[in-house]
Amino acid sequence: MASTARFDVIAIGNAIVDVIARADDSLIEAEGLSKGSMRLIDAAEAERLYAAMGPAVEMSGGSAANTLAGMAVLGQRCSFIGQVADDQLGHVFTHDLRALGVAYETPALKEGAPTARCLILVTPDGQRTMNTFLGASHLLEQSMIDEEWIAASDILYLEGYLWDPPLSRAAMRRAIDVSRAAGRKVAFTLSDAFIIDRHGDDFRQLIAEGLFDILFANEVEIQALAETGDFEAAVASVAAQVPLLVVTRGAHGALAIEGGVRTEVAAEPVDTVVDTTGAGDLFAAGFLSGQAQGLPIADCLTMGAVCACEIIAQVGPRAQTDLKAKVAARLG
Amino acid sequence: MASTARFDVIAIGNAIVDVIARADDSLIEAEGLSKGSMRLIDAAEAERLYAAMGPAVEMSGGSAANTLAGMAVLGQRCSFIGQVADDQLGHVFTHDLRALGVAYETPALKEGAPTARCLILVTPDGQRTMNTFLGASHLLEQSMIDEEWIAASDILYLEGYLWDPPLSRAAMRRAIDVSRAAGRKVAFTLSDAFIIDRHGDDFRQLIAEGLFDILFANEVEIQALAETGDFEAAVASVAAQVPLLVVTRGAHGALAIEGGVRTEVAAEPVDTVVDTTGAGDLFAAGFLSGQAQGLPIADCLTMGAVCACEIIAQVGPRAQTDLKAKVAARLG
Repeated sequence: MASTARFDVIAIGNAIVDVIARADDSLIEAEGLSKGSMRLIDAAEAERLYAAMGPAVEMSGGSAANTLAGMAVLGQRCSFIGQVADDQLGHVFTHDLRALGVAYETPALKEGAPTARCLILVTPDGQRTMNTFLGASHLLEQSMIDEEWIAASDILYLEGYLWDPPLSRAAMRRAIDVSRAAGRKVAFTLSDAFIIDRHGDDFRQLIAEGLFDILFANEVEIQALAETGDFEAAVASVAAQVPLLVVTRGAHGALAIEGGVRTEVAAEPVDTVVDTTGAGDLFAAGFLSGQAQGLPIADCLTMGAVCACEIIAQVGPRAQTDLKAKVAARLG
Repeated sequence: MASTARFDVIAIGNAIVDVIARADDSLIEAEGLSKGSMRLIDAAEAERLYAAMGPAVEMSGGSAANTLAGMAVLGQRCSFIGQVADDQLGHVFTHDLRALGVAYETPALKEGAPTARCLILVTPDGQRTMNTFLGASHLLEQSMIDEEWIAASDILYLEGYLWDPPLSRAAMRRAIDVSRAAGRKVAFTLSDAFIIDRHGDDFRQLIAEGLFDILFANEVEIQALAETGDFEAAVASVAAQVPLLVVTRGAHGALAIEGGVRTEVAAEPVDTVVDTTGAGDLFAAGFLSGQAQGLPIADCLTMGAVCACEIIAQVGPRAQTDLKAKVAARLG
């Protein structure tokens, strides 16, 4: 099938610029934030919190977009659908994706909301706490979904975060149907526990209908989805319903279950965790690149682990090192 | 005098956001750029070059603003005058200065030009090649100069880059008079050889009139100013005309001549030069902080060398390490 596809992967996700500042734990506490989590904030709260933050660095982000950026560096043919506004941060986001060779043609929103930004506080332990102002990103309409591109992509990759806004949820639901009708695969990442709190019933229904070929989750998410505090029970329950389940476990590595066969890898060694922003996104980038290259599951997991390891040793979610060389060196 | 001053330093400079991308030497050659230099570009060229650049990181910049950011971290009381537009990059620039405690109240320009940006190509050798679209920054008018603040600052620090636009040149010329009338000191950095090519006569005249108390230059600039290819002759000629001359020499350290007494320091050791952006700016930050603290010239030079060393070991011109601790560790 790969020979007839225009893209290895097409993703629908939030189009966000990250605003990254180091912060002491005292700021996390004073703001009443839950370290390591993501929360949605409105424009007023974004302005207030920004004023309380230290000097920052701006870098393109967005979960699925980060995954595509990693996949493009690894040599995959990628395209992205996501909504920016016609403003300076929107231009930054667009430039950074296109500069990597990712096809991105969603027209910028002319008015209504500015480009999304995520205010990220990175504590001395390297943990990131995210505060997202969705702006234009949650205004992605179904009309922005290029059905030809989706039908021409081996994998449709969807970001759970975008299930929250009604407009983009409808767009993603339509994209799933288009992809499946074309005989392609649908991959989904659960993104965050709060998304499962709100939309777990939707996800369980989609899984029961057999609409997800590949499902990505971390330890917290898989348990939230399976509605159990028992990790192994959660994995077993979900694995029975999806063809390929991938679960990341931070420092404890990752596992995949495909057709009843379980494969596990350890985390790659990392000297210093600088900033965990993008760890899951880049794991998915490595794993899906391995899939696109037709590699065995163990190698896909290793590629994911190598990419995750690289991204947490730097600031921000877009790789500044040569991921391709790192993967080649590791896989031999 | 320090006890009566509101600020240790007030600076007038370009208000710029840096857009930093790694680039191969082949791009520098293909673009016909002079590696290590700065050039001014218009909006159309900025758009064209940006499209040719790889993915980037955005970080506040501007030569004198970088110096103030360093000084604020080192504990000095700083204020800044510079022109941004009322747009997203302008908000980023403003936030990053204020978050460091730098007083910055120049009203944003409502229309006419966007906030300045500098497209910086960083080659594998760590050299930066800068392409500056000045936008709103060169529209700094004399009415934006807060004369009370200038009269209340021990040192007025001026960036040579801003001598180029006629509006800001007039504003800076007025600021010099205000500072001197209040019995303060005027410090000036020559910024770049192209500025001296265009305005060397102005600078030589200002020096002859005794209007600069402290002058910063690098090796190329001091020779351009003195109109000689003999470094030592250039230093001797200029040192005879300014109370305090500071010359940075990259890997060869730095020297200062005050009242005929010459002091030299070696460069601090650095493992890997990642990005030279901001080296001169942070040298000035360390040196002027030493001056503000009343330290001997040798210590001022060492503070400059430590700060320059820190900034070239990271990406971008705003320190992401604890400069104050580094300086304290070095000076003992």
